[in-house]
Amino acid sequence: MENATKWDLVPGGVTAPKGFQAAGVVAQVRKKGRRDLAVIYSQVPAVAAALYTQNQVKAAPVLVTQQHLAGQTAQAIVVNSGIANACTGEQGLADARQMALWAGEMLGIAPEHVVVASTGVMGVPLPMQKIEAGIRRAVRELSVTGGGAAAEAIMTTDTTPKEYAVKFMCGGREITIGGIAKGSGMIHPNLATMLAFITTDAAISPDALYDALRWAGDRSFNAVTVDGDTSTNDMVVCLANGLAGNEPITGQGSGFLLFRDALFEVCRELAKMIARDGEGASKFLEVRVKGAACEEDGRTIARAVAGSSLVKAALFGEDANWGRILSAAGNAGVPFDPDRVDIYLGDLQVAARGTALSFDEDRARSILEGREVIITLDLKQGGAEAMAWGCDLSFDYVRINAQYRT
Amino acid sequence: MENATKWDLVPGGVTAPKGFQAAGVVAQVRKKGRRDLAVIYSQVPAVAAALYTQNQVKAAPVLVTQQHLAGQTAQAIVVNSGIANACTGEQGLADARQMALWAGEMLGIAPEHVVVASTGVMGVPLPMQKIEAGIRRAVRELSVTGGGAAAEAIMTTDTTPKEYAVKFMCGGREITIGGIAKGSGMIHPNLATMLAFITTDAAISPDALYDALRWAGDRSFNAVTVDGDTSTNDMVVCLANGLAGNEPITGQGSGFLLFRDALFEVCRELAKMIARDGEGASKFLEVRVKGAACEEDGRTIARAVAGSSLVKAALFGEDANWGRILSAAGNAGVPFDPDRVDIYLGDLQVAARGTALSFDEDRARSILEGREVIITLDLKQGGAEAMAWGCDLSFDYVRINAQYRT
Repeated sequence: MENATKWDLVPGGVTAPKGFQAAGVVAQVRKKGRRDLAVIYSQVPAVAAALYTQNQVKAAPVLVTQQHLAGQTAQAIVVNSGIANACTGEQGLADARQMALWAGEMLGIAPEHVVVASTGVMGVPLPMQKIEAGIRRAVRELSVTGGGAAAEAIMTTDTTPKEYAVKFMCGGREITIGGIAKGSGMIHPNLATMLAFITTDAAISPDALYDALRWAGDRSFNAVTVDGDTSTNDMVVCLANGLAGNEPITGQGSGFLLFRDALFEVCRELAKMIARDGEGASKFLEVRVKGAACEEDGRTIARAVAGSSLVKAALFGEDANWGRILSAAGNAGVPFDPDRVDIYLGDLQVAARGTALSFDEDRARSILEGREVIITLDLKQGGAEAMAWGCDLSFDYVRINAQYRT
Repeated sequence: MENATKWDLVPGGVTAPKGFQAAGVVAQVRKKGRRDLAVIYSQVPAVAAALYTQNQVKAAPVLVTQQHLAGQTAQAIVVNSGIANACTGEQGLADARQMALWAGEMLGIAPEHVVVASTGVMGVPLPMQKIEAGIRRAVRELSVTGGGAAAEAIMTTDTTPKEYAVKFMCGGREITIGGIAKGSGMIHPNLATMLAFITTDAAISPDALYDALRWAGDRSFNAVTVDGDTSTNDMVVCLANGLAGNEPITGQGSGFLLFRDALFEVCRELAKMIARDGEGASKFLEVRVKGAACEEDGRTIARAVAGSSLVKAALFGEDANWGRILSAAGNAGVPFDPDRVDIYLGDLQVAARGTALSFDEDRARSILEGREVIITLDLKQGGAEAMAWGCDLSFDYVRINAQYRT
């Protein structure tokens, strides 16, 4: 990555940037006594931008958050796992508004400045007494080291919490960007396919924040696919509270590009964590497309390959079935000449100009036995590149999803 | 089905119509000594129409058949299973042409009047000596009772041969339409997602045959989904040899509609057989969408539900997770109001106006325990209806596709 020196990794996730506190508590929405409710809070109002699920069916918290963020300002996020508050009708909308109302009251801020999110089982009402008690406890426990607990509290079938943060210098000031995310089924482009909450102490205009988030989200969260389904609850929210004291970032200046690249780094790493932790995944897959006519074409093809059930099952079986890779690329709906395509597993070329090479099957198998596999397609149509991330399709994916609700 | 009385089921598959012969032989392209090469032959030249895979990557036999059918006339079909002759470059094209050349020589017809098809593993060259010997044997064994052997010979991971035929009266003449098909992985709309060969003794113009095939194919083969991947080799070919002696069918008259409906019946039954025999499938799924704004919207939504990995895994787990059904519908890219949607499992309503009903979970489970499950969504957007067919996502799907090539 040519930008690797532009920023430094820091601990703390969403509480790494100045002025942010978080907490994750056990509200008993989920079984098993795991943390299941988080609050993230900025000590001053923050500029807010968000990306939402493209599903026609939007869960109540998504609809409420869309209304609340119309003013492009927020100061807190309240989120629960265990129950998605999706397909819950008018009661669901009232419940989502109530969550914001309680959080606003307890934090002393306007309810419209509260982002609401939920993830979990659909079609079931929220246990509002537990939610109220959980918000109360979380607000009491807010701390500048609470990012990790918040990352835990938003997990559903995730096996590990996901957080990431970087700092970088911009005009003599240190800016920090931190995020948490959860997967891990119903993960597919457009959008969001997950929950991700990103905080930063950057001073930035609402439009610039949205542009940066849209750009970074397209190349990260939207480039991850686990199973082809986009959830009703997905959202990516970014709060920028300005406490870094930098010259406010606007438009397309060098500050904007610095910020956008750092935001992309955070989004991309969170997205890769989601792919790595896909439901039942035993392998992480990175698909690199080179030589695409344009970046969008490359991304579409990379996603099609990463999302193909047949490619994913072959990966699980450690089978160098490169024909499925080319066929999946051909299903992306993007024109290209299959007779030019070279395909690589790791650094081993397995096909040239769309046809078989007699490659070393043992070496291919040892590459596919790895925990992380890189597939590269060189389309030789142009100069653009893109990537997508996914995982294999395993017995455990079926097991988890055959039994998730019960 | 309101049209059920219009036609009668007959045995014989592709050899049911007058003037067609077929054979299926062991050419040893596949392991295990199973039939793997078929020839279908009409004693007179036939009008031909075809639908082809929409994959950018088209296998050599698809490209050769497209050229051969430019003249809308064919008299024979030669097809092998075991090796797909896909991703095989110039050699693959030469091999596909050679198959047509041999079949043409042995049958005494022009090679351009031979349809060529292959299905199986990609990226591997055809064993042409075995293919030549196989074609020779098949031509020798052609018979008017050979439809069943041909249906067997085109199977790959299919567990049962698929054939169907109907006869009906049209202007005082009896017309017969018969077909064979193979699935069963890489099955997804657009199109073809399989091989299907349909024969009829109807006299019909090339344009009318194509229109009828396109219409019937959209509502049958294109409404089946097993795993979201469209193969490089898919084609549906229909040969109409005119030996029924009917007044030639053209345009949109009543003869055309009779023929189209009967062709649809054959295509739909073959398509349902493919869904029923999806790789690893333990259950057959029919998704019915009612109240759609238009038929195309309904079909798109029905396919999205039938194709959702999460719906399919819930079906495998016999879990009445109707939220996934609504969410999958919402991912179809078609606008509708989720707050109007009613959902049924079999005849049990599980959601009303997009939210939960407190339904009988035991009854839901007993419906889901069935071998065939019908999901109905009433969108209440308009008066159109559509269906799609699929199967559950089982451990066996993963097992089969993790190990297919080796």
